[in-house]
Amino acid sequence: MGYPPMLEEFRRRVEAALGSYLARCGGPPGLVEAMGYSLMAGGKRMRPVLLLAARAVFPPGGLDPLPAACAVEFIHTYSLIHDDLPALDDDDFRRGRPSSHKRFGEAMAVLAGDALLTQAFWLMGEEYRGSADPAATAVVAEMAWAAGSAGMVGGQVLDTVETGHAVGQGELERIHSMKTGALIRAAVRCGAILGHASSDDLAALTACAGRMGLAFQVADDVLDATATAEDLGKTPGKDEAQGKNTYVSLMGVERARAYAQELTREALARLDRFGPSADGIRILARLFVDRTS
Amino acid sequence: MGYPPMLEEFRRRVEAALGSYLARCGGPPGLVEAMGYSLMAGGKRMRPVLLLAARAVFPPGGLDPLPAACAVEFIHTYSLIHDDLPALDDDDFRRGRPSSHKRFGEAMAVLAGDALLTQAFWLMGEEYRGSADPAATAVVAEMAWAAGSAGMVGGQVLDTVETGHAVGQGELERIHSMKTGALIRAAVRCGAILGHASSDDLAALTACAGRMGLAFQVADDVLDATATAEDLGKTPGKDEAQGKNTYVSLMGVERARAYAQELTREALARLDRFGPSADGIRILARLFVDRTS
Repeated sequence: MGYPPMLEEFRRRVEAALGSYLARCGGPPGLVEAMGYSLMAGGKRMRPVLLLAARAVFPPGGLDPLPAACAVEFIHTYSLIHDDLPALDDDDFRRGRPSSHKRFGEAMAVLAGDALLTQAFWLMGEEYRGSADPAATAVVAEMAWAAGSAGMVGGQVLDTVETGHAVGQGELERIHSMKTGALIRAAVRCGAILGHASSDDLAALTACAGRMGLAFQVADDVLDATATAEDLGKTPGKDEAQGKNTYVSLMGVERARAYAQELTREALARLDRFGPSADGIRILARLFVDRTS
Repeated sequence: MGYPPMLEEFRRRVEAALGSYLARCGGPPGLVEAMGYSLMAGGKRMRPVLLLAARAVFPPGGLDPLPAACAVEFIHTYSLIHDDLPALDDDDFRRGRPSSHKRFGEAMAVLAGDALLTQAFWLMGEEYRGSADPAATAVVAEMAWAAGSAGMVGGQVLDTVETGHAVGQGELERIHSMKTGALIRAAVRCGAILGHASSDDLAALTACAGRMGLAFQVADDVLDATATAEDLGKTPGKDEAQGKNTYVSLMGVERARAYAQELTREALARLDRFGPSADGIRILARLFVDRTS
């Protein structure tokens, strides 16, 4: 998938800022190397681009959204490193390369993940340090809540515990709304909060992001079931092999594809209150489901 | 070790707040249980009590220091869970009970640690949300910096990598100033920053905390070499068995004891500019080295 010019410009800004924040983190060279191996592995940077697109819905001014955008990518990257660990999903490949623990050993993978998670909060705290803008503390709270026990980590626990026995669609959606949805919602909410969105606008964007996150996960399950290892950059078919509950195991590939499209239509409908300033989010909502990796 | 009344009152407030913050974290019951197993295991709560003692050096007013105090304990607790993992220090006991991965399995221990680290930033972001006090963002930045790649996690990397070959005192102090010192300095600095300390006062307290942290580690190494498992609540003698570099391996028990006392005298000297309002820190500086567990 390629971004149109505005989103590609967002991606370039994120890419450059990620490198510069990583360089400022400091620490033992071996640790920084392991952090960079996972963080600077390219990728579409969908979450930070989404945050910047949500910020662009509102007039300019206030705090720079790049620190929060990069924080969400630091958090996403740490979660991939820890999820790949032998004790969790035990995946040897990620983005077409050995996963962190295969490359650096398990101890370093645990610590590189810990460091990326911690530095996510450092870069928001440091870049917004001393600000009287109420958005500064709000984005810290939003991001941490989304990544924490009632969000991403909690979802990973449910996904791990529930693996091996079938769950219904309601339970599956609850798991995914935590495991992958929470961080996507946080990206949109933080962008909006940094733009001093009204509570009505924030609610509409949150509802949109909820559908986008679910659609993203449904599309992910379809890809795992249908894509090649080359396209995916990781081992496909692992969900089924591990007895994971997915939308494909629940409803089959075709119905899952249709469901992702339906969710995307619902997400887009939530954006009707906004004008062309929300076009970035509109494009992303479609890209979330029309991707090949 | 017992606290005198003022510090005991601090400890009680911290203990109550930890339980109430944990209850507000939310998430799957199994995850919350694993978080609570490590977080609510008692202990002296030295870091949060130190933060409150540093706050007490300055006049009242401004933000409540309890969220920051509890955040430092959340972070300390997560670090113990991850350090005990088989891939790291591989310790089966902690505070006299099975360590988290022995009790809940490795996957849950990784995730419970991740959740505690994340919720540390949530509780600061949430409790200080919307505040215009510049201390709100500053404590987030300070705490994350201390816990991150150039601080606690970086120190753990050096400790792991360096284990097995001898290092000199300079290198050992650098490791410990990161691994255990950084969070102790952050506790003192955050307390002072919440009290709107002048830069001179902050510098004096930071220097004091640096000596206290080092003294704490030296005393820790002495305890590991001399205490019983019952006193310690964890396996003693592990440092030597694992070929760890410690002050005891470097200078022997007696000289290490004397060095801890010397560092404590230096720490106390940095407090000369403060009156009785710094008595809490003075008491803690002595307790850091005069402990049996």
